[in-house]
Parts: sequence; structure tokens; C-alpha cells
Amino acid sequence: MNMDNKQVVLSIDAMGGDHAPSEIVKGVSFYLQKNPSANLILHGNEELVRLAAIKYGIVEKVTIIHAQETVPMDAKPALAMRRKDTSMWGAIESVKQGHASAAVSAGNTGALMAVAHLQLRTINGIHRPAIAGSWPNPRGGFSVVLDVGANVDSSPDQLVDFAIMGEAYAKALYNKEKPSVGLLNVGSEEVKGHEDIREAMRLLRAHGSQLGMEIYGFVEGTDISMGTTDVVVTDGFTGNIALKSAEGVAKLFAQVLRESLKSDPLSIIGSLLAFNGFNRLKERVDPRASNGGVFLGLNGLVVKSHGGTDAKGFCAAIGIAEKLAASNYRETIEENVARLTELRNKNLEEAVIDGQG
Amino acid sequence: MNMDNKQVVLSIDAMGGDHAPSEIVKGVSFYLQKNPSANLILHGNEELVRLAAIKYGIVEKVTIIHAQETVPMDAKPALAMRRKDTSMWGAIESVKQGHASAAVSAGNTGALMAVAHLQLRTINGIHRPAIAGSWPNPRGGFSVVLDVGANVDSSPDQLVDFAIMGEAYAKALYNKEKPSVGLLNVGSEEVKGHEDIREAMRLLRAHGSQLGMEIYGFVEGTDISMGTTDVVVTDGFTGNIALKSAEGVAKLFAQVLRESLKSDPLSIIGSLLAFNGFNRLKERVDPRASNGGVFLGLNGLVVKSHGGTDAKGFCAAIGIAEKLAASNYRETIEENVARLTELRNKNLEEAVIDGQG
Repeated sequence: MNMDNKQVVLSIDAMGGDHAPSEIVKGVSFYLQKNPSANLILHGNEELVRLAAIKYGIVEKVTIIHAQETVPMDAKPALAMRRKDTSMWGAIESVKQGHASAAVSAGNTGALMAVAHLQLRTINGIHRPAIAGSWPNPRGGFSVVLDVGANVDSSPDQLVDFAIMGEAYAKALYNKEKPSVGLLNVGSEEVKGHEDIREAMRLLRAHGSQLGMEIYGFVEGTDISMGTTDVVVTDGFTGNIALKSAEGVAKLFAQVLRESLKSDPLSIIGSLLAFNGFNRLKERVDPRASNGGVFLGLNGLVVKSHGGTDAKGFCAAIGIAEKLAASNYRETIEENVARLTELRNKNLEEAVIDGQG
Repeated sequence: MNMDNKQVVLSIDAMGGDHAPSEIVKGVSFYLQKNPSANLILHGNEELVRLAAIKYGIVEKVTIIHAQETVPMDAKPALAMRRKDTSMWGAIESVKQGHASAAVSAGNTGALMAVAHLQLRTINGIHRPAIAGSWPNPRGGFSVVLDVGANVDSSPDQLVDFAIMGEAYAKALYNKEKPSVGLLNVGSEEVKGHEDIREAMRLLRAHGSQLGMEIYGFVEGTDISMGTTDVVVTDGFTGNIALKSAEGVAKLFAQVLRESLKSDPLSIIGSLLAFNGFNRLKERVDPRASNGGVFLGLNGLVVKSHGGTDAKGFCAAIGIAEKLAASNYRETIEENVARLTELRNKNLEEAVIDGQG
């Protein structure tokens, strides 16, 4: 699977997540079954990780680097930033030192972002990193939503950064040649929404077109699942709540479906017969398939797996890390941001000249 | 159905909505089948409404008031506010003049809010009206979410108003004795979220407990569908996007379910056998059952039905209007807001005294 791409090394936080290290190492074993030549470094308590690696038959196929400590799942970010002997710190340090192309962790999101931001720093010209999430759409593809929680407020300039990062991400991960970009708002009419959103759209239209981007315009909440655009840009507060509201409905729907089909004998028989159909449904809306919030805008790639994920979900997160690491998504971001900075400076100069004139 | 309650008159905008007046009048006929003694005024083009009323056999059972004009579905709010000869204006005027207890319209949301706000004004002490929406939860009940779109920004004081309105609404519509109230945020830890959200929680805890409210704390997006609290308070921007994201997932899930079950013969047979099970699913997650965004905080009740709704959905919206109009939800809001104003003034006085001391 790696033949067409650069050979990449991935760095795994084996102690992060609710079921670490067991489910994490099991997830790594799933990944190695599909990609036998993958090059993986596991950070964590050497004894525990080695035992799990023996159990899942991969101890000869991975590199284990010992870390004394584990960042607890309820850790405060500030605390995680001060401990350099954790598996989380080690996993990201491998990326910083160039030993690995990407890190994958199922640890606490806030702590992981703090440690990643501290060690890797933002790409020159990017104001703030963002977390990108994916959501299935009716065409069998995925919509990229960002930011889903790295920031609580986002300025219009930051939203433009997010658009650039999200576009590069959709190109690299979903092989879209020219991904369409929408800005999340309460109405599709341009008159609606608050001041910041309208200013962001003005900037997106002005700069995005000069960067060769496909700016669709405003989209609404329903458009995320409908796949109206390949990329949906929003601030971290709204994005997090949109994605979690969507997750909640998916859970509710699955539960009510199960309960409804168990409530009479014919429905029970019917749902047994429809086994293949239900399997297809599961595959298409399985949250594990799109497990992995990707930290974008840093000088190095970090993929955050869901904390409660199982081995299959963690394996999917490794897959996302591998595919992005082997792509040139970061070069795309860096090029566009350099050009955006030029455009911004030019506008600034013109404004100064206008002011003097 | 009205026997236990006050007899109410409802005022219907028969021309609002994508399928007006036909689906609206049909919805009224559904409502009259279940509530033969209901007292309904239909506003709209007399000829068209009368023809539809004859078609659905209710022409003898309703009052028709002629309105020359119809507010188009893409109307700008400012335009709707200037036309006093529309069915929308007439429907709300009936409430203002005390001829009806509530108005129901499937017209443009922005236009309807503008006309309602202009004619009815906010309850004394309430800063801004809000729109409350309902979402099914796994216990077979509904969670109330507000604001879902009346405002794009909300101050901490406004969020406290919304909590009071949402609590009264859950009491009246879902017969909750002491509804629990959550504040939507990106994390359930109190340290997360932006400044305004934390200030709102401080105010909610301080004032809410003195008003005898059950303040649960912060909730996340997933909690809406999980029914963690009876009421979820948020600003109109976030609330609108959360509810529409949820709607999008429900649509996606329904579509993928249909497609998955049609893709092999056994699944087709199975899903035919499971007919009753699927019907139960539909009933529990049917968006029409909770159709109706309720405008709260005005001196008069207005229920906004989904613009694209069919007769069944419009009938449900009339039901919501009737139940709320027959309850004392407005007295509850007025009492709590009066006490809240006292609390706010007391705090202000204390602050002034502190400042002088």
C-alpha cells in the first residue's frame, strides 16, 4: 500500500485512550495485517506495551520506546505540557525530531493539542491550529469539518486559514482535485449571520479565488451530512457542537432502530433476513471508519483518535495518519499560506497608501 | 381534549409555507378530526382558503378572514414588517387584539419573527425573544433546545432569559414538574468554553437556584439527542447549526437505511416482514411529530411550522400551539422574569454600595 507514496514512519502513543494499551496495540496489529511493511514506533510503558505486542503477535514488527508516565484522560492541558516523560510527549517528540512523519494518540484532546502546539509550533503564517473531523455523506464520501474544537473563538482571518487547511486535507485524504469549500452559517442567504462570518466570506471570496480555491458560499447545518461541499469551515465552538450533535443523533437513531426491530416477532425475523442490508448500513455510517480528528496547521502531523475507540477505530486513525503523511498536504498548505500572506500584505500596503492619499 | 384547559382560539396563517394553502388547510382538517370543538381562524386569500376548506370538508367549522397579500417564502423581514395586508400580519394581529391565544404559520422564519416582534413586543424584563425547538430522546420524550435561530449573538443575561423561557416551555408542553436545564458548551468541564458561556453559567447557578430551577451544568452536543437534560440553552447561531446538523444526520441515516435494505433480495424480504418495526422507528423519530419552533418571550404565542411541512406536520404544530396556549407558561415566565429583575437590581445596588464603600 505504501509503494506509490513516500515511506513513512508513524509514532504511536500506546498509552492514550480509555482502553490503552490493549486496544491501541490491537489496533496497531490490525494495521500491520493490512500493511505488513509499515514502520511504527510505540511509545509507552515498555513492559505493558511489550506484553500487549506479544499477545497480538507484533512484538518483532514494531519499535517500542519507553515512557515512564501516562497523561490521564482527564488531564489539564497545562499539566500535560510540563511532563516530558509521558508517552504522549514522546510520540510527538519523535515527529519534532524527524524520526516519524506523524503521531497518533487516543489521549485527552486538550492535552494532546497543548503538547503538539508547544513542540511543533504553527506553520509560518497560520494564526492557530485547527482540528479537522470527517462525516459520511450520501454519496459514500466524507465531508471535512474544521475547526471541531481546537479554538473557542475564531477571527475572520483564522477562518480563511482553516479553509486553506481543509482544502489541502480534502485533496490529500479524499483525492479531491478541487474540493469545494463552504462556510457554516445560520442561513444560506448572504444577508444572514453575524459580522465576523460575513467578513470571513468576503475574505474567502477575495483571497480564495486568487488561490484557485472553489468557494461555494454559505452552508447550513444540514449541508454537513448532505455533503453539499467537500469542506465545511467554522469556528471551533460551533464545529464541535455541530459534530457532537450529529454523533448524538446517529447514536439515538441506532438505538431506536434496534429497539423498534425487537418489539414484535415478524420484525425480529425480518431483521435477521436483512442481515446483509444492515451490515451495509453499519459500514456506511460506522463512526470508526472516519475516526481521527486531524490537527492541522502545525509543523508536523498529529492524529487524535477518539478516546473510547476500539482496535478497529484506532486502526482507521493510523490509516488516516499514514495517507496524509505520505501526501504533500503540508506543502500545499505552506504554499497557499505564503501566497495568502503576500495578498494580505499587499492589501495592507494599499490601505496605507489610500490612507496617505 | 380542551375540557381540562382554558378554551382557546387559534389563528392560522393559511398562506404561509411551500404548499399553502392546500396542505395548511388539510392540516387544519386533521386537527379538527381529533379536536372537533377547536376554535380556529384562518387568515388568507378568502377564495383560495374557502375552496380548500370545502375540499377538506371543514368550511362550516372554521372562520376565514380575508388577507389581500401573502408574504413570499424568500421575503426579507424588513419588507414583511411594512405590509399590514398579509395573512401573516393578520394571523398575528388576531393574537395582539386578543381574538386568538396563539398564531401558527409555516411562513418565512425571519419575516414571521420580525412581524411577531413588532406587533407583540417582548415580555417586560426579557431582553430578546427566542425560538424553541424540540428533539426526540431515547426515553421516548423530547429535549427542548433554545435559541435555535432568533438571534445570532446572545449575552450571558440573554442566555439566563432563555433558561427561564425553556423551563416554562418544558413544564407546559411536556408536563415536566422540574425540568433540568443544561448550557451547551464544548466540554463538560467547567474550565472549558469561552468567557460569555462561563459568565452565563455563573449567573444561571446564582439566579437559577433562587428561582427554584434545576441547573444541571454544561452539556455537550451529544447530550441533545441523549436527553441528558430536559432543556438545552444556547445562542441562536449555535442552536440553529446544532439542530440543523442533527436534522441532516437523520436524513442521511434514513436514506442510507433505505438504500442498504434494497440492495439484496433477502434484505428486501426482511424489511417487508419488519414493517411494524420500521413503523415504530418512523413514529419515534418522525420530525413531523416535533414540528413547530415556538417563539418565546413575546406578549403572545407564535408557533412556526416547518416551511416544507405536510398536513400531518402542520397539524402537530397546531397541537403545540393549543397545548401551550391552554397552559400558564406565560405566567410562569412573567413571574420568574419579575423575580430575576429584582435579583439583578439587588446585585446592581450592592455593586453600587460596594463601589461607594
